[in-house]
Amino acid sequence: MVNGVRRVRDDDEGSAGRLLALSDGVFAIAMTLLALDIQLPDGLDPTEFGRALGHVMPKVWAYVLSLLVIAACWRGHFQIFRYVREVDGTVIRLGLLSLGLVALMPFPTTLLAEYGDQPESVAVYSGAVAAMVATELALTVVLWKRPWLGRAPVPDAIARNDVADLGSTVLVFAVAVPLAFVSPTGAKLWWTVLIPVKALTGRRGKRLRADAEQFGS
Amino acid sequence: MVNGVRRVRDDDEGSAGRLLALSDGVFAIAMTLLALDIQLPDGLDPTEFGRALGHVMPKVWAYVLSLLVIAACWRGHFQIFRYVREVDGTVIRLGLLSLGLVALMPFPTTLLAEYGDQPESVAVYSGAVAAMVATELALTVVLWKRPWLGRAPVPDAIARNDVADLGSTVLVFAVAVPLAFVSPTGAKLWWTVLIPVKALTGRRGKRLRADAEQFGS
Amino acid sequence: MVNGVRRVRDDDEGSAGRLLALSDGVFAIAMTLLALDIQLPDGLDPTEFGRALGHVMPKVWAYVLSLLVIAACWRGHFQIFRYVREVDGTVIRLGLLSLGLVALMPFPTTLLAEYGDQPESVAVYSGAVAAMVATELALTVVLWKRPWLGRAPVPDAIARNDVADLGSTVLVFAVAVPLAFVSPTGAKLWWTVLIPVKALTGRRGKRLRADAEQFGS
Amino acid sequence: MVNGVRRVRDDDEGSAGRLLALSDGVFAIAMTLLALDIQLPDGLDPTEFGRALGHVMPKVWAYVLSLLVIAACWRGHFQIFRYVREVDGTVIRLGLLSLGLVALMPFPTTLLAEYGDQPESVAVYSGAVAAMVATELALTVVLWKRPWLGRAPVPDAIARNDVADLGSTVLVFAVAVPLAFVSPTGAKLWWTVLIPVKALTGRRGKRLRADAEQFGS
Repeated sequence: MVNGVRRVRDDDEGSAGRLLALSDGVFAIAMTLLALDIQLPDGLDPTEFGRALGHVMPKVWAYVLSLLVIAACWRGHFQIFRYVREVDGTVIRLGLLSLGLVALMPFPTTLLAEYGDQPESVAVYSGAVAAMVATELALTVVLWKRPWLGRAPVPDAIARNDVADLGSTVLVFAVAVPLAFVSPTGAKLWWTVLIPVKALTGRRGKRLRADAEQFGS
Repeated sequence: MVNGVRRVRDDDEGSAGRLLALSDGVFAIAMTLLALDIQLPDGLDPTEFGRALGHVMPKVWAYVLSLLVIAACWRGHFQIFRYVREVDGTVIRLGLLSLGLVALMPFPTTLLAEYGDQPESVAVYSGAVAAMVATELALTVVLWKRPWLGRAPVPDAIARNDVADLGSTVLVFAVAVPLAFVSPTGAKLWWTVLIPVKALTGRRGKRLRADAEQFGS
Repeated sequence: MVNGVRRVRDDDEGSAGRLLALSDGVFAIAMTLLALDIQLPDGLDPTEFGRALGHVMPKVWAYVLSLLVIAACWRGHFQIFRYVREVDGTVIRLGLLSLGLVALMPFPTTLLAEYGDQPESVAVYSGAVAAMVATELALTVVLWKRPWLGRAPVPDAIARNDVADLGSTVLVFAVAVPLAFVSPTGAKLWWTVLIPVKALTGRRGKRLRADAEQFGS
Repeated sequence: MVNGVRRVRDDDEGSAGRLLALSDGVFAIAMTLLALDIQLPDGLDPTEFGRALGHVMPKVWAYVLSLLVIAACWRGHFQIFRYVREVDGTVIRLGLLSLGLVALMPFPTTLLAEYGDQPESVAVYSGAVAAMVATELALTVVLWKRPWLGRAPVPDAIARNDVADLGSTVLVFAVAVPLAFVSPTGAKLWWTVLIPVKALTGRRGKRLRADAEQFGS
């Protein structure tokens, strides 16, 4: 079998199971990381208790925001690896890099939640999202070009749509990094450019996948 | 196969394995979260040691209570996903939401263990339980109405019993939120309404499942 | 098939995979919990650095001790669940209880490492080990008496040897709890009673398992 | 079957799945451990915010370095266990030892990142890497000599190359421990001896594995 030989020659690693187990572990920790901060000191009297409860609310908000970001990353990761069966050295390296970025995400998210009016917060957050989505983009391209790693090749139309989707996200967030130093609010408004782009690629992706499943594979 | 095509058209995600791996990771962290607090400072003399050990006891108690709550959540989650093989976008979204609530549970549980006489504690705890069980209810309904996601359709009698069980729990805890501000103790007594309800639905559920297994599937 | 029907009638839960995934998550966190404490503050000058490094050593020692204890628990858990395929309500309840105790183990272990001369430390540690091994004993008995949960019934001779091994451990550590208040050192010496007992049951267990594999199953 | 009987006689443990699940959990926690430190206090004014952000950078750097080290360990672990199906007592003991060392790695890595000019830091880091790679070496030898644990025996040429690769790493880092007390910088330069060695064994390993896959297995 040509594919089998080719895979083995290119690289000597394989079996996606462990990389996904490691990934789900890192995602689980990243999701719960900010919940560790949501705590009251003990031994407070009723007045202090009320005040302390009020101070906890921004942390709950940072937790919710971080959860949404990590959950979105996990969904992206889930989609990318859904039909992958084998991993080679390049995929492992990109996968580990993306995990390192996932574990880091709670920090820029907290910056944004607590210091959202500071240019540095918006720049750090935009840069972190851009880096994270860029590794997802790289993984998508690598897996598309190496069909022997998956159960079935990704149809070109679907892969191109995914690349457009992820590529535009990287572009928007990368541009937001310098923009944040001009105007933090401007950079946040600039993010909303993605809403129509995502709506378009999302709808096209859904249709393409439905078609692919109906005729073939 | 009609079901297969339908699933694919509705949604392009699947494979429950990774969602369950992520879930078990979050449950494992949530279960051990409060154990992180159970610590003595080092370098104490014997008198200080005795006193510090005494101060640790409320944390052990909060840990035990939180463990019980998370363990009950895990058993519910286990039951709900027991026969699920595929997950679609809606199930993933609800599943991630329920994980976010699971990771948050140690906070309201500690509030209840340490400040159980404050109305806010009872209200926050009741609200958290109500929200958590509401996502379990939503998951149960979604999985019942989308039999193509599971290995076998859930019999209607069993699903209706589960909905009654979870729905009454949501109702009781949701009513306890405003009640807590009238009387925290009254709200806690109100929770006990669930004991006979749970006993009834629990016994019915067991009988229905035994019957279903004996004739069929 | 009689076994299948019986299992289903007794209980409506099953599938050991998720309980083991949850368990391995909790074990992984418990193993690394004390490593979180091994840290130096930043920005120290060379003299302070040397002193801070010295203060870290007792924490490394507590970590090593805790690792050994948790690793021993994991090996016991691994052995107990090795041939288990299905779990019912009783096994899940006992399994969750044992996880709660595993997550707690770093605390008594640190007590012992840092305050080993205090009676309370030896008593708390002995009690924690006794409780932990008692749940392992209960799991062993339940799984032995419910052969339909495993891939093959546990031979009676092996199960009796395991019960003797775990039962004597529970007994020794339970007796050590009051003993610790008479003499902490005496209680620690009393633990060594287990060395010949363990050697005996360990060797017998190995021989019995080898025989069982050779003739049959 | 001779192999089967032999395995059973030697040892009564098996099934690599749970050891790998535990390992991936520990790796996931070790990877994210230092991300827990990357936090800003809340309620800072703009000037304090800028300064606090600057103080966070060394922690980000320690996190990146630690991530690289743990990721390299994970890739080694992945390679070693890739074709392993069963684990016996020796493999479990070595595996648990290596996990204990993995969980510890963030500490020496932080030492190196923050106090890299101190002899103790370089010595502790070198010793930790030497110990970690020594357990990988021991695992490689044990698995090579016990072919019945894997899906297929490891060809002798590949195993010898892996032993040379890991053995030289252990040697270089073990020698660096005393060297660090003579000159921390000298010890770090000494590490670079490994670059040509690794390049050589890496290239040979890739070729040997490609050949093995083409003819046979």
